[in-house]
Amino acid sequence: MTKVQSTASEFTREIGGGGNFIRQTNRFVTPFGDGPDKLPVETGRYRLLWAPICPWAHRAIIVRKLLGLEEAISVGTANPVRTEQGWEFSLDEGGVDPVLGIRYLPDIYKETDPDYQGRATVPTVVDIKTRKVVNNDYFRLTNDLETAWSALHKEGAPDLYPEKLRGEIDALNDILFHEVNNGVYKAGFARTQEAYEQAYDTLFARLDELEKRLASSRYLFGSFITDSDVRLYVTLARFDIAYYSVFRTNRNRLVDFPHLWGYARDLYQTPGFGDTTDFEAIKRGYHLGDISNNPYLLLPKGPDLSVWLTPHNREQLA
Amino acid sequence: MTKVQSTASEFTREIGGGGNFIRQTNRFVTPFGDGPDKLPVETGRYRLLWAPICPWAHRAIIVRKLLGLEEAISVGTANPVRTEQGWEFSLDEGGVDPVLGIRYLPDIYKETDPDYQGRATVPTVVDIKTRKVVNNDYFRLTNDLETAWSALHKEGAPDLYPEKLRGEIDALNDILFHEVNNGVYKAGFARTQEAYEQAYDTLFARLDELEKRLASSRYLFGSFITDSDVRLYVTLARFDIAYYSVFRTNRNRLVDFPHLWGYARDLYQTPGFGDTTDFEAIKRGYHLGDISNNPYLLLPKGPDLSVWLTPHNREQLA
Repeated sequence: MTKVQSTASEFTREIGGGGNFIRQTNRFVTPFGDGPDKLPVETGRYRLLWAPICPWAHRAIIVRKLLGLEEAISVGTANPVRTEQGWEFSLDEGGVDPVLGIRYLPDIYKETDPDYQGRATVPTVVDIKTRKVVNNDYFRLTNDLETAWSALHKEGAPDLYPEKLRGEIDALNDILFHEVNNGVYKAGFARTQEAYEQAYDTLFARLDELEKRLASSRYLFGSFITDSDVRLYVTLARFDIAYYSVFRTNRNRLVDFPHLWGYARDLYQTPGFGDTTDFEAIKRGYHLGDISNNPYLLLPKGPDLSVWLTPHNREQLA
Repeated sequence: MTKVQSTASEFTREIGGGGNFIRQTNRFVTPFGDGPDKLPVETGRYRLLWAPICPWAHRAIIVRKLLGLEEAISVGTANPVRTEQGWEFSLDEGGVDPVLGIRYLPDIYKETDPDYQGRATVPTVVDIKTRKVVNNDYFRLTNDLETAWSALHKEGAPDLYPEKLRGEIDALNDILFHEVNNGVYKAGFARTQEAYEQAYDTLFARLDELEKRLASSRYLFGSFITDSDVRLYVTLARFDIAYYSVFRTNRNRLVDFPHLWGYARDLYQTPGFGDTTDFEAIKRGYHLGDISNNPYLLLPKGPDLSVWLTPHNREQLA
């Protein structure tokens, strides 16, 4: 494995004048659904490419499992340690994705559009028939799975995006995106002390509010899991193991928030969450990947992860 | 300030074949005392050079204060952020130590011995009269202050090195040195995963033992502070703020050990300890100095340090 002592160089185009990180917008945003301008919903037609380190991709994997879409949408898993050439399918036999035959994720972007200039990101949905990237809209993808794909949901699948709550869920998701999910990246990728501190302050102010909200409510919207819980979970699962050190979001750890920590454990212990959370991959990805500054590629042994299986006693809140 | 994206290069000579860190031995080890082969004890004759980040130097500063040697031995304070040129007296007016007139610590080493090849370390004791480095023996220096300097101790100074306990204190100090004080550096400066993990395992096994020892004993040797407590304290004071992230000693934090954490707070709240502990300097030193890998020089805002002033209730153990 070649280690690049990177300063997150591929992200240089996404750094603003104040040294702040401005995440690129997605290029492939056609939604799933009926009609000529939509991607048709069809079993076996798409391949969802992801890497277990990535919170944006992880949420699509969680929702796919919660809704029972494993048979309908196949999955290709990249090595969690991102290389200078981008996400790599080096965990697969021969080092290529067995369905698409690509070695690096950017290969399929180039095949789709030779002029594509952005980063090749996960999640990426590829139409297996046409071998084209058709969607990399991590922000809306789970909502598409929850709505447009409903005919293929398993019997008894939860309603993660209840119609009457969509306005509230969307509003909270926007906040979660800017202040939490992407908030940790804004702290970690900042190139000035000011940009870092602004992201840090915003993040912890929001976590303090969520801590209060979850003191009396089992999930964000009450006694049932919604799309917002999936979004908050993926950041919390990476907090102590990666962001606290690598992104310097270290006012305190997740385990220091009694309610957020109970909430995170509650979700972790729910099928679809913990069983799709690969802590070892997350650790390797953040600490050894090209976004780290770790010249001798030392993988931290800690922290202790057995605590994720301790009782949370949040059933009483329901 | 120029930042060197260093891989701790000055330490390269101190890396063994297994990628393990082997700290240099001290060159200036003449002890204080009576007789022709010793450094004479004399008020106002010596200048103790230190940097608040440095645990090896901090312990001499704590002992100097506990014993009331502030008038007898003057102190020069380097900037906690070590530069590529070594420790720098940039906090002083004109950027030079007001007594010795040196800008960088290595200057006085070169003046003392033009052939000196080692690192110029703190603590360094300089004979002001001859302008020579006379002692940089961080391992024995506190013991010299506790014994050879006793005639100059303040009224009622504690006996940090009681004669009948010296054998036991020395034995524990050896363990503390190899497994804890220098143990964190062995983890942090390791260049192979194996060397890092070995240091990590040894460190936490020892902390687990000390945790047990301090469950029923206020200090390491009972109800009174000894030289060993000073040595353990300086590492604990830097643990959560620096080593946990920068040196990857992250099985858990100090605050996760109930007894070690109470013990550390107890000492912090004792004159001589907390009032010589400059957390801001420690943070800057480890995170921004040439031993860090921090290309944009971002100073972590956390962790919360107000917890050091919370009650410890360890008086009952005495």
